[in-house]
Amino acid sequence: MQTLWDHRFAQRTQKMQSSAIRELLKFAEKPDVISFAGGMPAPDVFPIEEFKNACIKVLEQNGPACLQYGSTDGYVPLREMIARHTARYGINVTIDNILPTSGSQQALDLIGKIFINRGDRIIVESPTYVGAIQAWNAYGAEFIPVPFDENGMVTNELEARLRAGPKFIYVLPNFQNPTGATLSYERRLQLIELADRYGVPIVEDDPYGQLRYEGENLPAIEVLDSQTRSQTDCYLGNVIYLSTFSKILAPGIRLAWVIAPPEIINKLILVKQGADLHTSTFNQIVAFEVAKRGFLNEHVKIIRKVYKERRDIMLDTLTEHMPEGVNWTRPQGGLFLWVTLPECLNSEDLFDEALQEKVAFVPGSSFFAEGGGNNTMRLNFSNARPEKINDGIARLSKVIKKHLARKGMQISK
Amino acid sequence: MQTLWDHRFAQRTQKMQSSAIRELLKFAEKPDVISFAGGMPAPDVFPIEEFKNACIKVLEQNGPACLQYGSTDGYVPLREMIARHTARYGINVTIDNILPTSGSQQALDLIGKIFINRGDRIIVESPTYVGAIQAWNAYGAEFIPVPFDENGMVTNELEARLRAGPKFIYVLPNFQNPTGATLSYERRLQLIELADRYGVPIVEDDPYGQLRYEGENLPAIEVLDSQTRSQTDCYLGNVIYLSTFSKILAPGIRLAWVIAPPEIINKLILVKQGADLHTSTFNQIVAFEVAKRGFLNEHVKIIRKVYKERRDIMLDTLTEHMPEGVNWTRPQGGLFLWVTLPECLNSEDLFDEALQEKVAFVPGSSFFAEGGGNNTMRLNFSNARPEKINDGIARLSKVIKKHLARKGMQISK
Repeated sequence: MQTLWDHRFAQRTQKMQSSAIRELLKFAEKPDVISFAGGMPAPDVFPIEEFKNACIKVLEQNGPACLQYGSTDGYVPLREMIARHTARYGINVTIDNILPTSGSQQALDLIGKIFINRGDRIIVESPTYVGAIQAWNAYGAEFIPVPFDENGMVTNELEARLRAGPKFIYVLPNFQNPTGATLSYERRLQLIELADRYGVPIVEDDPYGQLRYEGENLPAIEVLDSQTRSQTDCYLGNVIYLSTFSKILAPGIRLAWVIAPPEIINKLILVKQGADLHTSTFNQIVAFEVAKRGFLNEHVKIIRKVYKERRDIMLDTLTEHMPEGVNWTRPQGGLFLWVTLPECLNSEDLFDEALQEKVAFVPGSSFFAEGGGNNTMRLNFSNARPEKINDGIARLSKVIKKHLARKGMQISK
Repeated sequence: MQTLWDHRFAQRTQKMQSSAIRELLKFAEKPDVISFAGGMPAPDVFPIEEFKNACIKVLEQNGPACLQYGSTDGYVPLREMIARHTARYGINVTIDNILPTSGSQQALDLIGKIFINRGDRIIVESPTYVGAIQAWNAYGAEFIPVPFDENGMVTNELEARLRAGPKFIYVLPNFQNPTGATLSYERRLQLIELADRYGVPIVEDDPYGQLRYEGENLPAIEVLDSQTRSQTDCYLGNVIYLSTFSKILAPGIRLAWVIAPPEIINKLILVKQGADLHTSTFNQIVAFEVAKRGFLNEHVKIIRKVYKERRDIMLDTLTEHMPEGVNWTRPQGGLFLWVTLPECLNSEDLFDEALQEKVAFVPGSSFFAEGGGNNTMRLNFSNARPEKINDGIARLSKVIKKHLARKGMQISK
């Protein structure tokens, strides 16, 4: 259809494409497909009863405020609760350091809006979270990928890239999306030391930090940075820290938060005002009602138990079914693991056939800002029930084996 | 506090300032201030009981879906309901023409993102909605203001401005924010005719169209455009149409919608995915549950009755209290009216003193993209209860009279 809008799109939209994830989530919705594609929490652990009771209570006691406009800077009791929550893992801030956002995706978008000029370079892990690439592409960012292994970003490779004058470093230190890998303690220190030497700040995206199933918690980069540079544990502000209620409460309420110095929070508030006025008052008040009085700490224990079981089943069935030459990460937490196929295979080529077998994954190439990763895939282990995980991995292995056979590869298992 | 973020803000943030509205909403929150400042619906008309019942029902019957991630393009039953709703006033579209957004403010932001290159010109009414200025400033828009009177945009003044090659025309045809004025039928036709002749498309922002208290409904520009150009009533798509649940249901759930051709909806979905992934699943499902089965039509009748009464009281008390030389609009609907003071007065200068008298308004200059309007103010009549409106206008008149006296003006009332 011809309209007067034709040929009026802005330059920045030329580069925009639908992300593979979005297209794939459509298939994930079909009930007969076993989906390892989305990044979805298990609906089994949603605190539905608590949400219902909270809705009833806040609407009865505080209905007009729940349904009215609110201020862009967010619901004060929620911000106070977030301050208490983050203090438990060493981030000691006041509510002036905290902005609730409409999901962490909005935080990424707003950070792009206040910091990124066209052509600015952002250092990212390779692979990295596809939503960050998408958000920052809109502002004309260029990405400098840093190699990545089972201990996270290879910080030995960072220095040469810091010389390119990047705007900031983007890092997902815990159970990274997409790989599930965690940045080691030594590398955290090296990252901070190098960032300081080159005067480059850090965006730390930590949606999964609370979901550790084994091993010791590592301090946030935010915390290490403050401790290292100021020799105290007071908040310093070189690191913008993001986290979310999506994985520890429910993603459907779109509620996350940014921690940053007050002058950055003020800029974020200004752009958020232009972006969506404010995050839903109702959702902020309901989330506060559900999560106050220590609910989160208890609830996270349940989530950890359920997800640990699912991770273990996925690891076991991968060992059982996958042919030789296929490797995968063994994440200590989070929602994802990362499969590397023999180099002769392209995971995108497998995708249609996998769907015919009623199993879905995300081809790994989506997560590489500058290309690559054709023989990789991201698997989510949090969403599907244990028996489905077993079936799904068996089906996926079958497809992989078939493709290997076509390439004339020996299959030893 | 010095951090590594210093001097790293993007160019676009240089121009950003906190809008007067945001700063003023803070004062509006103080309980002893009678506020005509915000654009807030009356909490008295929020369907709190219906929301409570809807929350219970959807969480009991559909809890996992309510709290889970959803697709960016929105909840299908809600989009179907919006299609039925808009068909009642002549906009006949399918769900492929509809995108739910996190408030109309997000729709404005996303439109900016897909259409506005730095330096692009946007034709706006003068005054116009401050949130549009704020959203589009972030993309480097320049604004071409068109004079405005009690019949809306002065379309006779439009042609010269269309020659400047604008990207689009932004118009609030019904009970405009901030003035309350409605674009006349003749001017709607002239607007469409000129837009067609110069090949310039239109963004029609219609948050208040349902809230008419007297007079005849006028067809949407969207509808007139389709009828005029195609000689049928089928959807044409030269006009992007925005509306919202904020004024007919509740703003605290942040839920609105865009109507546009499918290729524009697809671009909007792409940028929305990068901006906030999707609008809260919970809020979409709850709003659908509240609003389905014709609730909106019945509820809007109640809102009209309450707001008409408040408008009438504000008009009466203005007549009773205001000194000669002060003029105001007589809106046939919506939430606002517009006061013009004698030219010797600056409404910003009155603001502090008005606050001391415990009454608040928005100085009109905020609504002029390119300056002006110093002697104007926007008054909201929907939020305060009738007795408060009376008191507030009396207080405001007192402040105006005092300032006029200081200027040595005769006060005849």
